[in-house]
Amino acid sequence: MLTAAVIARAVGAALEEDAPWGDLTSTALLPPDTTATADLVAREPGVFSGGDVFVAAFVLTDPAIRVDVHVGDGDEFAAGDVLATVTGNARGMLTAERVALNFTQRMSGIATLTAAYVTATEGTAARIADTRKTTPGLRAFERHAVVSGGGRNHRHSLSDAVMAKDNHLAVLQRSGRDLASALRDALVHLPHTTHVVVEVDRLDQIEDVVAGGAHTVLLDNFTPDELRAGVALIDGRAQVEASGGVNLDTVAAIAATGVDVISVGALTHSARALDLGLDLRID
Amino acid sequence: MLTAAVIARAVGAALEEDAPWGDLTSTALLPPDTTATADLVAREPGVFSGGDVFVAAFVLTDPAIRVDVHVGDGDEFAAGDVLATVTGNARGMLTAERVALNFTQRMSGIATLTAAYVTATEGTAARIADTRKTTPGLRAFERHAVVSGGGRNHRHSLSDAVMAKDNHLAVLQRSGRDLASALRDALVHLPHTTHVVVEVDRLDQIEDVVAGGAHTVLLDNFTPDELRAGVALIDGRAQVEASGGVNLDTVAAIAATGVDVISVGALTHSARALDLGLDLRID
Amino acid sequence: MLTAAVIARAVGAALEEDAPWGDLTSTALLPPDTTATADLVAREPGVFSGGDVFVAAFVLTDPAIRVDVHVGDGDEFAAGDVLATVTGNARGMLTAERVALNFTQRMSGIATLTAAYVTATEGTAARIADTRKTTPGLRAFERHAVVSGGGRNHRHSLSDAVMAKDNHLAVLQRSGRDLASALRDALVHLPHTTHVVVEVDRLDQIEDVVAGGAHTVLLDNFTPDELRAGVALIDGRAQVEASGGVNLDTVAAIAATGVDVISVGALTHSARALDLGLDLRID
Amino acid sequence: MLTAAVIARAVGAALEEDAPWGDLTSTALLPPDTTATADLVAREPGVFSGGDVFVAAFVLTDPAIRVDVHVGDGDEFAAGDVLATVTGNARGMLTAERVALNFTQRMSGIATLTAAYVTATEGTAARIADTRKTTPGLRAFERHAVVSGGGRNHRHSLSDAVMAKDNHLAVLQRSGRDLASALRDALVHLPHTTHVVVEVDRLDQIEDVVAGGAHTVLLDNFTPDELRAGVALIDGRAQVEASGGVNLDTVAAIAATGVDVISVGALTHSARALDLGLDLRID
Amino acid sequence: MLTAAVIARAVGAALEEDAPWGDLTSTALLPPDTTATADLVAREPGVFSGGDVFVAAFVLTDPAIRVDVHVGDGDEFAAGDVLATVTGNARGMLTAERVALNFTQRMSGIATLTAAYVTATEGTAARIADTRKTTPGLRAFERHAVVSGGGRNHRHSLSDAVMAKDNHLAVLQRSGRDLASALRDALVHLPHTTHVVVEVDRLDQIEDVVAGGAHTVLLDNFTPDELRAGVALIDGRAQVEASGGVNLDTVAAIAATGVDVISVGALTHSARALDLGLDLRID
Amino acid sequence: MLTAAVIARAVGAALEEDAPWGDLTSTALLPPDTTATADLVAREPGVFSGGDVFVAAFVLTDPAIRVDVHVGDGDEFAAGDVLATVTGNARGMLTAERVALNFTQRMSGIATLTAAYVTATEGTAARIADTRKTTPGLRAFERHAVVSGGGRNHRHSLSDAVMAKDNHLAVLQRSGRDLASALRDALVHLPHTTHVVVEVDRLDQIEDVVAGGAHTVLLDNFTPDELRAGVALIDGRAQVEASGGVNLDTVAAIAATGVDVISVGALTHSARALDLGLDLRID
Repeated sequence: MLTAAVIARAVGAALEEDAPWGDLTSTALLPPDTTATADLVAREPGVFSGGDVFVAAFVLTDPAIRVDVHVGDGDEFAAGDVLATVTGNARGMLTAERVALNFTQRMSGIATLTAAYVTATEGTAARIADTRKTTPGLRAFERHAVVSGGGRNHRHSLSDAVMAKDNHLAVLQRSGRDLASALRDALVHLPHTTHVVVEVDRLDQIEDVVAGGAHTVLLDNFTPDELRAGVALIDGRAQVEASGGVNLDTVAAIAATGVDVISVGALTHSARALDLGLDLRID
Repeated sequence: MLTAAVIARAVGAALEEDAPWGDLTSTALLPPDTTATADLVAREPGVFSGGDVFVAAFVLTDPAIRVDVHVGDGDEFAAGDVLATVTGNARGMLTAERVALNFTQRMSGIATLTAAYVTATEGTAARIADTRKTTPGLRAFERHAVVSGGGRNHRHSLSDAVMAKDNHLAVLQRSGRDLASALRDALVHLPHTTHVVVEVDRLDQIEDVVAGGAHTVLLDNFTPDELRAGVALIDGRAQVEASGGVNLDTVAAIAATGVDVISVGALTHSARALDLGLDLRID
Repeated sequence: MLTAAVIARAVGAALEEDAPWGDLTSTALLPPDTTATADLVAREPGVFSGGDVFVAAFVLTDPAIRVDVHVGDGDEFAAGDVLATVTGNARGMLTAERVALNFTQRMSGIATLTAAYVTATEGTAARIADTRKTTPGLRAFERHAVVSGGGRNHRHSLSDAVMAKDNHLAVLQRSGRDLASALRDALVHLPHTTHVVVEVDRLDQIEDVVAGGAHTVLLDNFTPDELRAGVALIDGRAQVEASGGVNLDTVAAIAATGVDVISVGALTHSARALDLGLDLRID
Repeated sequence: MLTAAVIARAVGAALEEDAPWGDLTSTALLPPDTTATADLVAREPGVFSGGDVFVAAFVLTDPAIRVDVHVGDGDEFAAGDVLATVTGNARGMLTAERVALNFTQRMSGIATLTAAYVTATEGTAARIADTRKTTPGLRAFERHAVVSGGGRNHRHSLSDAVMAKDNHLAVLQRSGRDLASALRDALVHLPHTTHVVVEVDRLDQIEDVVAGGAHTVLLDNFTPDELRAGVALIDGRAQVEASGGVNLDTVAAIAATGVDVISVGALTHSARALDLGLDLRID
Repeated sequence: MLTAAVIARAVGAALEEDAPWGDLTSTALLPPDTTATADLVAREPGVFSGGDVFVAAFVLTDPAIRVDVHVGDGDEFAAGDVLATVTGNARGMLTAERVALNFTQRMSGIATLTAAYVTATEGTAARIADTRKTTPGLRAFERHAVVSGGGRNHRHSLSDAVMAKDNHLAVLQRSGRDLASALRDALVHLPHTTHVVVEVDRLDQIEDVVAGGAHTVLLDNFTPDELRAGVALIDGRAQVEASGGVNLDTVAAIAATGVDVISVGALTHSARALDLGLDLRID
Repeated sequence: MLTAAVIARAVGAALEEDAPWGDLTSTALLPPDTTATADLVAREPGVFSGGDVFVAAFVLTDPAIRVDVHVGDGDEFAAGDVLATVTGNARGMLTAERVALNFTQRMSGIATLTAAYVTATEGTAARIADTRKTTPGLRAFERHAVVSGGGRNHRHSLSDAVMAKDNHLAVLQRSGRDLASALRDALVHLPHTTHVVVEVDRLDQIEDVVAGGAHTVLLDNFTPDELRAGVALIDGRAQVEASGGVNLDTVAAIAATGVDVISVGALTHSARALDLGLDLRID
């Protein structure tokens, strides 16, 4: 979740980064009492995300600036729509403009891309989930944008769920013990609330990891046919997650296999900033 | 510049974000003394950036991990190339892996995109420059990546150069005074080291802003023909910068007009993460 | 998990709290090159926890101080045992002493109390777990101490697992819908890795919350007979956790009912500092 | 003193620790506009401390929550008393509840224990004082709680008063000089506002340390008879402090010897959290 | 520029430095509801600077304190003038008093000294500029005070303009290449907005550095006659800055040589605190 | 005391302030492997202070730089003396130079001014003490410099000693009670280690404040004759401190009156930076 504290901290740091000792241009060229009105306008269609962040950029710069956001996070908009209106002192508005846009364009870009994946899988039970492939320092923002786009979040970090991969399984099997009991023994010291995902590369690994206590089996780089076979094998004893080779061309076929979750790194690592602009009129 | 202090702070924060109370999986599944070797492998060709950042992710996690980076920032590589090798304790390597990749993939993505723009303008005097459209909190990293790709940096922030746009000029002209002297008067209180960029939309504004003291005239959304006319008008009395409508299809024609600088927001706001992977072998 | 970064930050802050502008006494009374040796001695028996923290207090004060810890976290010791030996400059040792002890005594106190609960439930399958009733700012330390004592951790915070209580259930039932489907619908937007604990006060609530998707059913303030009935009802479809009225007199009977987890706030909110002392000999 | 800045910092950090990315449960299960009322109820009798801290936990989470505290710090209460009432949005109240209680229960526990020591020494001139055996990071809170219980504070840290112990005296005497002048010479470089406590183990050390400039002589581990003899020897030339072997059974006899101060580590290192609960009714 | 964020941070830190755990005196001696009125009175004539900082010291201590500042930054005042009036709770006013004065006295001292330099050069085109010889941590405050005194700021830091000195030039010339082209090549990788100052010790270096791209030529330790010759040589192709040997006795002659800028380290490194006092009347 | 932690934090912040994104000049003009040697040379005589701080500025910039400090804090030096030698990479040395000098020049300026006061009072028992009139953020540094000059420190902050002034006494007397008992009652809640200074304006106040428990009586703005009378009146029952009207012309006469302490705000608020320079030779 994107808490108020997280927004204040990241937006404050971004404002500091962008104007460590003030906005030379506005201060030099605009009389101190200049006021302005600005519209946040969509230059292309998309799905909105980041309303609270947009507001924070202006209010943290000048608490007297007023921002009315006309759309909710998750709302679709068309090119030309006015998404928000900002009024107040012109110096503060110009100082905050770029930071407000940098956040909102990126978040809306992610929401829009996520929505495309969600739309492509409509009618199936599969949820589209993000990954840890987020921009350093902005994970809470990008996860929020994924939800705005109709996606769901995966584990937040390395600290709140287990995800065992091939290397981990290889180590467990060195002892010569069977994988299921080795896995179960390794996990027993974790909190009883810890969710365990185990990634497999082949169908024949599934039985062991389900027996070993996996709550979710992640089928990595499986073909749709293999996924369908995996879903049948697991048969409701664990959730089934698919990853690898997921793009807008392949996601529908993957979703149709009956998997519960499709995790897509591209949602955050390859979304581009959506084209939003601030049309400012100095009064 | 990307100083060691800046790297340590941002990478440290990213590691904290990704494992606030440790890596549950590695701790549960790997014996504490497990060691590993990993290669950073390019899955697609590109231009590298972020060597020091890649190293920092591992060393800040476990100072005993050794990282050898085989390429320099700015070097081109092919798909399949091994860019770096990491050796040490497996737990720390797995904990740091995602953060190391998140930074390096993004930085190399920017460097690679920048290099494409630079290549497209080879043989001209135009420099490809970034903008303030950077990821909040990561400006120093993304500016560094632009330089790795052969680009140049623009002003760092609102605090270290003036950029006057249409709204600023409109305010200056309200008084009824001529723009040149109004501009000159407004700027006189700035440090004598402050660089002044003035953005114009029409050729007929150029004479005034040069007379007003602009060191760089930014011609925004001009056609190539208009740019050529602008360069002729300015005639060496100021630097000429072009922006707006710049993409890989148009940049060569823009560069051929004789402008000194082409600023491209897409370098940072729309680069996608390059596909780099860590192939890890537990010893 | 108690990461090195977390230790450094909390111990550093504690040293700052205890000597914001240095240790007046040592500086005034001891020549700068005075050296000393000190033994950490147990004044009463117990279970040790906090070895890395003890070391950090001295090393962050003076990196040249050497600390040898003779016991591992989780080891039992007798009154009179020497648990660690510290050698180095006397000024730094005296400056760090109180902070080192404040952490180690508290952590060992928690480990010792936890071990008493664990011992009392030996031979049963029940795990003793901590709660969120920890000292503000020290949760990672106190959770680590619980593990040292043979206990297990519960969810780390409000952000990494759901725990629905009576008030939440009451709100869900207002709509007139059946609880199971209302609960299931409410949880669907969470990450698929989120563990769901639901607390019930009466046996007749169990069927609904299991159907609603609870991974753990928390039976709050149940008698042993009621617990036994609850375990039978749930019959392996979810984990069973007991809480309320747990103390060293009652815990064995509770564990004997077949519950999987017993959560005990007293482990952290009411443990007393164990009596450990530093016997220092100035050389 | 417990300043507003200190409260905001520590409570803010505790809220962050307990919900780094929000309260999953409340967000998933409660409609955003759910309101509630809660009473802070004493489950056992005691002395209250931490009213401002209790308020801060809620207000820092949601500034619109209203908290009325019905008792002052230092007030006694009976089991069943309602100590405070909280009204506002239910999500914020549930998010803040545990942090508010963790602070208030611990502070009231310390105040209650302190009051027992103060009551046991009523009618004597001895003041009950705390020590540096406080929870790392919470010294200001625990010192405040001691005052709420009728106790007094000792020096805040190593930086604001001198306390010379046996090891320090041993070093001073190595030179062969008399202790009084060695002590006086060592202290002369300190600020003239620095208070000097000197700890002695035997009656025959007293004359020297008084002559050496001690403002307070700390008699460590003396019997009541020895304390009485020490008070007589010092005869008003310095304050007399007693420590060691102080508990609720011995403190009255110690106070009756005429000492000015009795310092008690147990006030903070061994107090248990008082049983306070929040009875919440969702509207 | 002295932004609100910078003021809040530095003044907050200073208040913390001066009262880490409160103001013992006011708390012990003044009833909590004591109110007071205080005048900020000039004990000597000068130029004011720091109004916003003065206000912040009180308001950050107690938001209910009201401060009316009767003069603007840059205004001259006479001995005895009342510069500001503060009303509110006496405890907070006494706690904040010293910090408020420490900032305002220092800033007004710098403004007053700067004004003396500016007055001495009236009628010339030379601007009086500060340097990087500022108090660590207070650069933004001291630069603001220089502007209050009628001076101008130089580059903010090492990161926002180039200043090449003798050592740099010596390195460039090692290669045997001509200085002009070596300098030009070295600077080409910098942002096109970077201002370049080159310092010379002798007249015969000027031609090369102008040809090498210097925007400002800094003539260091030149006599007035040499400065005049330098100005003639440069002839408008770059700005001319003078430094070295500048004091109130010499500055007029230096300014009369036609230089554009005179940089004066003494403005910040040797200004003394102006004598301002707070006359407080407890109501 | 100036602890290593305090030095690292303040020097680190100053380096960040002076080069937030690196040193453009050195990076552009010096090959990365350029080495240099530099001497810290005194341009005027004085007393040194800040050796550890000088070292830290270089080492925090580049841990491979070596600094040999040839004088101790408190040592006198003549114009032309080489006080320290620095060797290492030239880029780092130039980046750190200004910060190193800004600290050391200011600290040595304070030490030198303090030494003048101490010399002027030689042969008397009076100690020269600093005040809270220090540069915000640098109190620990300036207090250290006062000690380097042979002075002594006063209370560190509002939190570690009481200083009651005229306004406080006026409030105490409102009740109509006698001042001595009102003062004593007000102070009883403070820690028994708290030192109490009471400031008086007239001789007839002395008896009351001594009776009220003052450990030091501060005679503010007394003539030498009045001071002598005050010393006689107090007669060893408290320390005697003089303040107000103290300068290098008056301090000897004040010291000769027999006061114990003379507190001098000018030591820190009006010292000028001593002229020290770094003579750097690029190898």
